[in-house]
Amino acid sequence: MASTNLTFSSRDAHQAWLHTQAVLPVGFRVGTTTLGFTPAEVLRPAKMNLTLVVLDRPTPDFAAVYTRNAFPGAPVILGRQRLQQATVGAVVVNNKVSNVCAPDGVAVAERWCEAVAGVLGLQGRQVLPNSTGVIGWRMPMEAMLAALPDAAASLGQRSLVDAATAIMTTDLYPKVRRASVGPGSIVGFGKGAGMIEPNLATMLIFLLTDVAIPRSELRRMLVPAVDCSFNCMSIDSDTSTSDTVLLLSSGAAPCANPAAFEHALSQVCRDLAEDLARNGEGVHHVMRVRVSGAPNEALARGVGKSVVNSPLFKCAVCGNDPNVGRLLCAIGKYLGLAAPELDLRNLRIRVGGLAIFEAGCFHLDAKVEAALVAHLKQAQLYASAAPIDGVFRPPLDYPPHERCVEVEIDLDAGPAAATVIGADLSHEYVSENGDYRS
Amino acid sequence: MASTNLTFSSRDAHQAWLHTQAVLPVGFRVGTTTLGFTPAEVLRPAKMNLTLVVLDRPTPDFAAVYTRNAFPGAPVILGRQRLQQATVGAVVVNNKVSNVCAPDGVAVAERWCEAVAGVLGLQGRQVLPNSTGVIGWRMPMEAMLAALPDAAASLGQRSLVDAATAIMTTDLYPKVRRASVGPGSIVGFGKGAGMIEPNLATMLIFLLTDVAIPRSELRRMLVPAVDCSFNCMSIDSDTSTSDTVLLLSSGAAPCANPAAFEHALSQVCRDLAEDLARNGEGVHHVMRVRVSGAPNEALARGVGKSVVNSPLFKCAVCGNDPNVGRLLCAIGKYLGLAAPELDLRNLRIRVGGLAIFEAGCFHLDAKVEAALVAHLKQAQLYASAAPIDGVFRPPLDYPPHERCVEVEIDLDAGPAAATVIGADLSHEYVSENGDYRS
Repeated sequence: MASTNLTFSSRDAHQAWLHTQAVLPVGFRVGTTTLGFTPAEVLRPAKMNLTLVVLDRPTPDFAAVYTRNAFPGAPVILGRQRLQQATVGAVVVNNKVSNVCAPDGVAVAERWCEAVAGVLGLQGRQVLPNSTGVIGWRMPMEAMLAALPDAAASLGQRSLVDAATAIMTTDLYPKVRRASVGPGSIVGFGKGAGMIEPNLATMLIFLLTDVAIPRSELRRMLVPAVDCSFNCMSIDSDTSTSDTVLLLSSGAAPCANPAAFEHALSQVCRDLAEDLARNGEGVHHVMRVRVSGAPNEALARGVGKSVVNSPLFKCAVCGNDPNVGRLLCAIGKYLGLAAPELDLRNLRIRVGGLAIFEAGCFHLDAKVEAALVAHLKQAQLYASAAPIDGVFRPPLDYPPHERCVEVEIDLDAGPAAATVIGADLSHEYVSENGDYRS
Repeated sequence: MASTNLTFSSRDAHQAWLHTQAVLPVGFRVGTTTLGFTPAEVLRPAKMNLTLVVLDRPTPDFAAVYTRNAFPGAPVILGRQRLQQATVGAVVVNNKVSNVCAPDGVAVAERWCEAVAGVLGLQGRQVLPNSTGVIGWRMPMEAMLAALPDAAASLGQRSLVDAATAIMTTDLYPKVRRASVGPGSIVGFGKGAGMIEPNLATMLIFLLTDVAIPRSELRRMLVPAVDCSFNCMSIDSDTSTSDTVLLLSSGAAPCANPAAFEHALSQVCRDLAEDLARNGEGVHHVMRVRVSGAPNEALARGVGKSVVNSPLFKCAVCGNDPNVGRLLCAIGKYLGLAAPELDLRNLRIRVGGLAIFEAGCFHLDAKVEAALVAHLKQAQLYASAAPIDGVFRPPLDYPPHERCVEVEIDLDAGPAAATVIGADLSHEYVSENGDYRS
């Protein structure tokens, strides 16, 4: 699915590579600042950052896909309205407080956009707001307004690494992916580590390009690119109230080949989706589930989602325990409800390339089991470190490799296929989400 | 939902109460034995138990509901066939190996039933087989056949506590519930602690009654009783390949009031369902989610299931962290997909009786937050003990109380309601399912 198969020996090596990806396309400026403010109500001390992405000239060429959660955040409500605007000129992002179902949240977001527009010489409706963090709390407007001049003053960086770092919440490291398209490029950066089963997730993705593609084409292309990337992954099956994918073109580079652009767009989205899974909360293993032989793509995707969302299979994978009965259980749970009439007599399952299930029964022995354990271990990103005060924390802040647990399921019942990306379930996930408030 | 609100100060107190519930109805005998066999392939050493429930006379009056998983175990396949039999005379249960998708599993189960029938003077098709445990492995037939005479010799006990203990896998304590119906009774016992979102779950439930109710009525009554109990709960959203609910009547006591029987049947099922949730793998808190004001019952149940299956909300509850944003997220995730047109402006949420959400926004402050924390803490069954060799184990083997985290969601969009039972997600769950093989 991803276009790379990288390994990193250290945080520095990963950071160096990030800088090769994070080159800002022509026509954009980016800036970040940190507020002195620490939200009083939020238990875990952490700073709020503001991030600005500003176009040299407001552009009509932008597209967005938003969460399907029935309680979207105020930035999503405003963002949807702004899709009708003639042009947009800036994106503003804050972490720590998501401005979802907070009192007067929409009015607060509107005032915030007006203020951002004021320092940038834009109109409020030309600003796309984005917030991520705790649901239900008010935005600390006073502190944010006080920090705004600093954010504006910082504009002009040529790398997106600081911005990709500033928007993080429980992410361990920034996520940036780049693809060249002729003389131009698409550079995407994003955050999201939990509450992730996009439709979309607690996920903010910003795709910047200098390639000149008109608005209507950008919007047409973004839907399938998101569908086969962010909508084909799940970390914990939770769909957030803030999920957003934005795509903005400065139009600075001519486009000779729209098909190449569309291909590159899909690739950047798929790479970022896999990065999100790899850096999901407490993730020790990324799972890649390829489902083929399905009557239709929705069913293939449903089987894959059922596997990557099965808590029992996720826990087993985390423990390098090839408890493949749970894998079969997850497949059967979904198909028993979604397609009870389907003939599954020829269903085949391979894990790590090993055939384990065929003709209605498992083919397991001690040798197969040992090979499955080895496959799980080589795909492990890290082993748990001993908990401190009962809290498990991931022992690294970079991705050591991009290997996945490879699961192949052939239903032998049709022509359709889908690949779903997911992750295991670990003590670090429970600690992250139960042992303290992010 | 449950009919009781018990507290137990010790394992002994719980066991004493169990014996008041576990009085065998007239017309049944029960026996158990333990095999010397320890499955070689199963990593965690543990013994297999055989349990027999035998009717004094084969009965035509029995009913069953089975899993909807597309890969049912061999006992489920045989059990479904046996629903057509004129009479059944015995139920046999083994733990440790579930006989699901194992080579020749159905033929093995048939041979096993023949052998059980042989020692009881029945025919093989009069025996209902049940197996629970690891999926994919073969049944250790030789060891099981060798132990069969002992199981038969033990028949005749008047208490079901030993049987309810013998069928356990990762359960911490046996689960038995009784209701009187005129001169007779219904006594149910069951097991199941993980892979639990019935439709049905890794759940075996045996409901024995001496009340004379004809087969057709038993089968009619069992469906709604299961639907509002075992099908309204979820521990981890995983639907197992073995789920079974059996109901057998010896007919020894006349039935003056079928409606009273039906009511008692539902009550026993609801009580057992709550017992299963309370003893779910790693469960620190049971959640009871009452959804009202829904356009229809399916939607109400869907909202409740989405809440109790949200990993993020489950982790927060486990940590006594009232992160109610995640609760709203879980509601909105489901409704955004299942009923995107629904008007949710009047949706109200109460937790522990406290109004926290109304008119589109949260009403939270430090005082409300403190009250929510207190509600979570009083519903906690136990706090984690320090892990040993990195493995978390529950520090108790009895239920100290029956208090729940009470969540009420009023959609104000119709007349329908549903109550869903669920549980939190803890380090003990991850340890149980990732740190060693059950």
